[in-house]
Amino acid sequence: MKRVNIGIFGLGTVGQGVLQSLRERGESLKARTGIDFHVKAVCDRSYKKKGTVLKNIHASDNPSIIHDDPEIDIVLELMGGIEPAKSHIVKSLLAGQSVVTANKALLAAHGEEIFKLAQDKFLHIGFEAAVAGALPVIKTLRRTLVINQIHGIYGILNGTCNFIITKMQNESMDYDEALKLAQDKGFAEADPSFDVNGNDAGQKLALLSGIAFDTFISEDSVQVEGIAEIRQMDLSIAESMGWIIRLLGIAKISDDGSCLLRVHPAMIPENHILAHVQDEKNAVLFDSSHSGPSLIMGNGAGSLPTAAAVISDLVSISKNTEPEIWMSSANSIKMVKDYRYRFYLRFQTRDKTGVLAEIAEILAKNDISITTVHQQEGEEPVDVVVTTHEAWESSIRNAIKTIDALPIILAPTVSIRIIDQL
Amino acid sequence: MKRVNIGIFGLGTVGQGVLQSLRERGESLKARTGIDFHVKAVCDRSYKKKGTVLKNIHASDNPSIIHDDPEIDIVLELMGGIEPAKSHIVKSLLAGQSVVTANKALLAAHGEEIFKLAQDKFLHIGFEAAVAGALPVIKTLRRTLVINQIHGIYGILNGTCNFIITKMQNESMDYDEALKLAQDKGFAEADPSFDVNGNDAGQKLALLSGIAFDTFISEDSVQVEGIAEIRQMDLSIAESMGWIIRLLGIAKISDDGSCLLRVHPAMIPENHILAHVQDEKNAVLFDSSHSGPSLIMGNGAGSLPTAAAVISDLVSISKNTEPEIWMSSANSIKMVKDYRYRFYLRFQTRDKTGVLAEIAEILAKNDISITTVHQQEGEEPVDVVVTTHEAWESSIRNAIKTIDALPIILAPTVSIRIIDQL
Repeated sequence: MKRVNIGIFGLGTVGQGVLQSLRERGESLKARTGIDFHVKAVCDRSYKKKGTVLKNIHASDNPSIIHDDPEIDIVLELMGGIEPAKSHIVKSLLAGQSVVTANKALLAAHGEEIFKLAQDKFLHIGFEAAVAGALPVIKTLRRTLVINQIHGIYGILNGTCNFIITKMQNESMDYDEALKLAQDKGFAEADPSFDVNGNDAGQKLALLSGIAFDTFISEDSVQVEGIAEIRQMDLSIAESMGWIIRLLGIAKISDDGSCLLRVHPAMIPENHILAHVQDEKNAVLFDSSHSGPSLIMGNGAGSLPTAAAVISDLVSISKNTEPEIWMSSANSIKMVKDYRYRFYLRFQTRDKTGVLAEIAEILAKNDISITTVHQQEGEEPVDVVVTTHEAWESSIRNAIKTIDALPIILAPTVSIRIIDQL
Repeated sequence: MKRVNIGIFGLGTVGQGVLQSLRERGESLKARTGIDFHVKAVCDRSYKKKGTVLKNIHASDNPSIIHDDPEIDIVLELMGGIEPAKSHIVKSLLAGQSVVTANKALLAAHGEEIFKLAQDKFLHIGFEAAVAGALPVIKTLRRTLVINQIHGIYGILNGTCNFIITKMQNESMDYDEALKLAQDKGFAEADPSFDVNGNDAGQKLALLSGIAFDTFISEDSVQVEGIAEIRQMDLSIAESMGWIIRLLGIAKISDDGSCLLRVHPAMIPENHILAHVQDEKNAVLFDSSHSGPSLIMGNGAGSLPTAAAVISDLVSISKNTEPEIWMSSANSIKMVKDYRYRFYLRFQTRDKTGVLAEIAEILAKNDISITTVHQQEGEEPVDVVVTTHEAWESSIRNAIKTIDALPIILAPTVSIRIIDQL
């Protein structure tokens, strides 16, 4: 039986999940693949404290235990962060070792260099686990949909945000309560800003759309907005109009190569399948030329789901002769800076006559046409909610800037895109 | 650039889709894969009529055009039916050619022999297109979920049935009207019985569960019921109780190796994601030990979606050195013959006093406990609808047999399983 020797950098949640999975299901994996996967060395800075997990696996805090072992075929980089993860990957590739990584932050920043090096060395770089955990989004793009032109990607890419929004929606929690619950359950960090501001989803969308559009796309190309401003009343007004709120990552490309990349909360029709992705689940919907729409949903994080994705890459790499080509197009992509959407706007105002007139006048001056207005009695700030016809994002931003400077406005205006068709 | 020569048996809808796709997207496919896929020969009995599709591809009605060409690496069997498709596949494998087929009927009947032959010859057999068209269900099982024990599969595997049920549900059509529309749109055959009776879904479930459970499972092992008895009132009563009806293929395996295989309509919670799979779409939900639940949804049929799945197999085979192992387990599987479900029962009765008492008595004698009763005024036959607590399938069948023999019963009783948890 063919034997594949593995070296692992980093024995955190995912690394431990890989060891556990290979132990629990190693015999089945051999039978299914005809390959004996053998963890030959683990490099971890606190390896001495992890004896129970390591059992009798050779371990050290010195990277040379992996770099200098010519018998190691595939290196798993499961440390996270930029350095020393990047140096380890580069050194492994230079040493002729293929690499599997779960490190989206690294690939969103330095993927171009790493992909190119792997391709030059005719080595594999697998990163299924870097985007949406257990979901086969990279394999689906590069294999299942390989003949397709990908027109669009619509993704629920951050489990923390989806958990918070669905708890607010289904159990009428307020934002802080839902965030606290996410933290208690381990879905959110003590400092949740990277998740709730949309940055995590932005990195994943950059990586995913790069694969889909055959080029490298940096995370800086993605316009990002988060969910921290969403309140219970936004969800209930949306619901009364037949919409559900989700934090979506959206990538669309036109025939002329202009590319829209956005992460933002969106109101989507309640009968759309993405509106039924609950709790910490992730989902990605691909819109493609030949296969049509394809949705994948499942666990976007967690020790064992992420480990399963890492192991699927191990198997693919061990069975493939030829590495995948990750950036096949020389086409440059032009980013769309401004786009037309319907908007939901919530203004937080003083309880004074003429407020709506002032707001409406500024919207009109910015070519923004109103479709509905909601206003309820209550204490200050009074929420005035307006939905609009399609308008330019830039016009909406300009209008909000002007409105938020008015003395009648007590807090920054909340804006959420309405997407009737996706 | 590596060149892979292809021979195609059968130039029907899927075969034409493959040619069209390779023509439209051939340059992109080369760039993404580094492989030049070249259709070297096509065998089709009416090839003379297909000149516009074939253009200058070498074609004949003589299979030797493919079998006798030592330069052909991969053979696509896209004819359908058992013979001569089976002979062509066997002959190709014996000649050292790997095979891609979209033929679920053939594999559900003779898969064991074909998989074994491919394995003995160390050749590839790809069949992603045989189950759920464009959806990567086989690849997800064998690659993404490779480390997982698969506990269960819940599939919407027949687009015709899902189209009919969702049209009945969303547009209040009656069964015949929805079936007619499906036929007009090309989703249903002139004789729809193979689809609406659940047999098509049964073949797909057999194939899928065989891969999931590492053994060959014959279509005869699947207990099958169809949708032809479902009426508008079943959908509306279900809806009033928070359920949606779908035709589901269900495969579950216990730790002791006992395996439940069923295709039948089921009432499932309206907030479950499978309840939101609309129209002719297919979807498969895998319940797995390490990755958790994973859902895939998309086009289960159609020329280009199915062709895309065929081409994804072409790429996998061309890049892989080692063929997949399709039946790795020597374990025999024990089929579950009887199982406990909640049931929805619709009795079609005379308008007479004492009807409900008679029915209730027979249910009680069969240890079937009632949860709700619906009965409305109307013309004969009067529909008496009962939902039950969990009961054995065999008890339900016995009770229905006794009840349907009563003079008060005017038509066969309709039974639909209720699945609160899936």
